[in-house]
Amino acid sequence: MKTLPDLTNPIAAALDRVIKVFDDELRSDLPFVNDLVEQVRRYRGKLLRPRLLLLSARATGDLRHEHTVLAAVVEMVHMATLVHDDVLDEADVRRRTPTVNRMVGNEGAVMLGDFLISHAYHLCSSLQSSRASRRIAAVTNTVCEGELMQIANRGNAALSEHEYLEIIRRKTAALTGVCCELGAWASEARPDIVDHMAAFGTDLGIAFQIVDDLLDLTASENELGKTVGRDADLGKWTLPAIRFRDSAGPGDRARLLAAMSQPGDDRAARLRDTLSGTESLEYAMATARSYVQSALSHLAILPASDAKDGLVAAAEFIVTRRH
Amino acid sequence: MKTLPDLTNPIAAALDRVIKVFDDELRSDLPFVNDLVEQVRRYRGKLLRPRLLLLSARATGDLRHEHTVLAAVVEMVHMATLVHDDVLDEADVRRRTPTVNRMVGNEGAVMLGDFLISHAYHLCSSLQSSRASRRIAAVTNTVCEGELMQIANRGNAALSEHEYLEIIRRKTAALTGVCCELGAWASEARPDIVDHMAAFGTDLGIAFQIVDDLLDLTASENELGKTVGRDADLGKWTLPAIRFRDSAGPGDRARLLAAMSQPGDDRAARLRDTLSGTESLEYAMATARSYVQSALSHLAILPASDAKDGLVAAAEFIVTRRH
Repeated sequence: MKTLPDLTNPIAAALDRVIKVFDDELRSDLPFVNDLVEQVRRYRGKLLRPRLLLLSARATGDLRHEHTVLAAVVEMVHMATLVHDDVLDEADVRRRTPTVNRMVGNEGAVMLGDFLISHAYHLCSSLQSSRASRRIAAVTNTVCEGELMQIANRGNAALSEHEYLEIIRRKTAALTGVCCELGAWASEARPDIVDHMAAFGTDLGIAFQIVDDLLDLTASENELGKTVGRDADLGKWTLPAIRFRDSAGPGDRARLLAAMSQPGDDRAARLRDTLSGTESLEYAMATARSYVQSALSHLAILPASDAKDGLVAAAEFIVTRRH
Repeated sequence: MKTLPDLTNPIAAALDRVIKVFDDELRSDLPFVNDLVEQVRRYRGKLLRPRLLLLSARATGDLRHEHTVLAAVVEMVHMATLVHDDVLDEADVRRRTPTVNRMVGNEGAVMLGDFLISHAYHLCSSLQSSRASRRIAAVTNTVCEGELMQIANRGNAALSEHEYLEIIRRKTAALTGVCCELGAWASEARPDIVDHMAAFGTDLGIAFQIVDDLLDLTASENELGKTVGRDADLGKWTLPAIRFRDSAGPGDRARLLAAMSQPGDDRAARLRDTLSGTESLEYAMATARSYVQSALSHLAILPASDAKDGLVAAAEFIVTRRH
C-alpha cells in the first residue's frame, strides 16, 4: 500500500500553488485576524480534500488555474467546518494544537469559522462561471443539514444504521464527493465520468467518517492528536454502538443502553469497555471497507495514470490509517 | 416624517416576491430543519436591508428579477449574523421571541447560522454573473472582521471613537452599503451613481448602529423587544461611554471606569446610572444624525421619485426610531 506522501507526485507543484492561493486569500489588514488565521493554519493536516480534487483533475484531464482555486476553496470550507465542529463538540485538542475555541472562546471560534467560509465563497466567486459556486454552496447546505441532523439525534438510542449513514453522507461525504466531481468537471471531463468521480468521492467520504468515528472510540488521544471519546460523551451514536445494540443479546443491550444513557465524561470509557473485543468494531471497519470497494469500482472508467494510482492509494489509506 | 410602512409603496409587490424567494430557498427535506427555519423567520423584522436594496433599485432604474434575488440574499446574510450574534452575546430574547441559542443550544444556533449563510450564497450564485456573489462575499469578509475586531476589544477601556466607528463600519455598515450599491448596480445605473448609493448605504448603516447601541443603553427590554444592556454586560465600549470617558472630569471618569471594569450582570445598570442625564447620550445621537445628513447628501444625484422619497424616509426613520 502506498502512504499518503506518495500520492503527491503527480500534483506536488499544484499543491504548493493551492497553499499560496489559500494564504493570499485569508490575509487581512487587521493583525489579530492574521494571528487567528495563523492558529487555524496549524489545523491544516493531510490536505485530503485538495489532493482528491487535484488527483481527480489529473486523472481526467489537465490541471488548470480553476483547479488550484477550487482546491483552496474546499480546504477553506473544510477548515471552517472543523472550527465550528470544535465549538459544537467542545473539543480541547485538534491536530495536537489547542482548538480555536479553547484559545479565543466560542465567540471567536464562531466568527473565525464564518470568516473562513466567507473567504471560501469569495475565492470561489473569482471564477468566471458561477457553476462551481453554485455546487459548493449546495454542498455546504447539505453539510449544515447533516450537522443539524446529528445534533437533533444526540442521545437518540433508536438511531438506525441507515440514519447514521445518511448523517455522515451529508456532513462528510457531500464535500469529498464535490471535490472529485469539480476536479473532473473543471477538466471538462465527459458528464458520465464526472458522475463516477462524484460517486467515488462520496463513497470515500462515507468510509472516511466511519473510520473517523471508530478511531474516536478505539484510539488514544496521543495516537490521534485530537480529543477522543467526544462522540460518546456527547451522546452521539456511531456505527459500532448501533451494531452492538442491534446484534447483542438482551443483557448486553441493556448494559450498552445504560452506558450510553448516563451522562458524564466517562461515557466514552464505559462504551469502550462494553464494545471491547466484540465484533461490532470489526463490523464497522468491514462496512468502511465495503464503501472503499464501491468507491474503487467507480474508477474503472478511467485510463491508467499516476493520478489514478494516487486516487486508489488515497482510498486504501482511509481504511488503514491510524490517525 | 414618514413611518417605515409608508416606504413600501413603490416596492410593495417586489417585497412580497422577496419573501417568497426567501422561503423557497430555505425549504429542506428534513422536518426539524424546517422547524428551526420557522423559528428564525420570526426574527424577520423590518426587512430594512431588502427595502434599501429595492428602493435603491427603483430610485436608479427599473426593478428586475436580480433585485428580488439579491434582496432575499442580503436578508439571509443579515439573519445569519443575528443568529451568530446571539450566540456571541448570549442573548435570550430577540424580537420578543426566545433566541435560537436559547431554544436549541449554541450548537444548533451555530449550525443554523451556517445554514442561512450557505443558502444566501447558494441563492446568489443562481444569478448569471458572479459579480454580485463576489461583492456579497467581500462584504461578509468585512462583517466577520468587524465582529472579530469587536471581540478583540471587549473590555478595552482605551477603545477610541475612531476605532469604535471602524468596528461598526465593518460589522454593520458594509452590508447596508452593499444593499444600496447592488440595488443600483443591478439597475445598470452609471458607476458614479452606484458609488453614491454605496456611500449612502454605508453612512446609513453607521447611523443605524450608533442608535442601536444607544437604545441598548437607554431603552427597556419591553420597548425594544430584545435583551438590553448586553453591550455593557459584555464589556463592549460604545459611543456614549467613550464620549463620557473622553470628556468627563477625573472623578466622573474614574466612576465610569469602575462601572465598566466590574464584571457582572448589573454592569449595564451601573453604566446607565453613570451616563443618565449627561450630554454623552445626546452626543451619540448627534453623531448618528450627522451620518444621516451625510447619507442624504449622496442622494442629491438622483432625480425626484417615490423611491427616492422612500430612501429619505428610511434615513430619517433611523434616528427617530424607538426600537
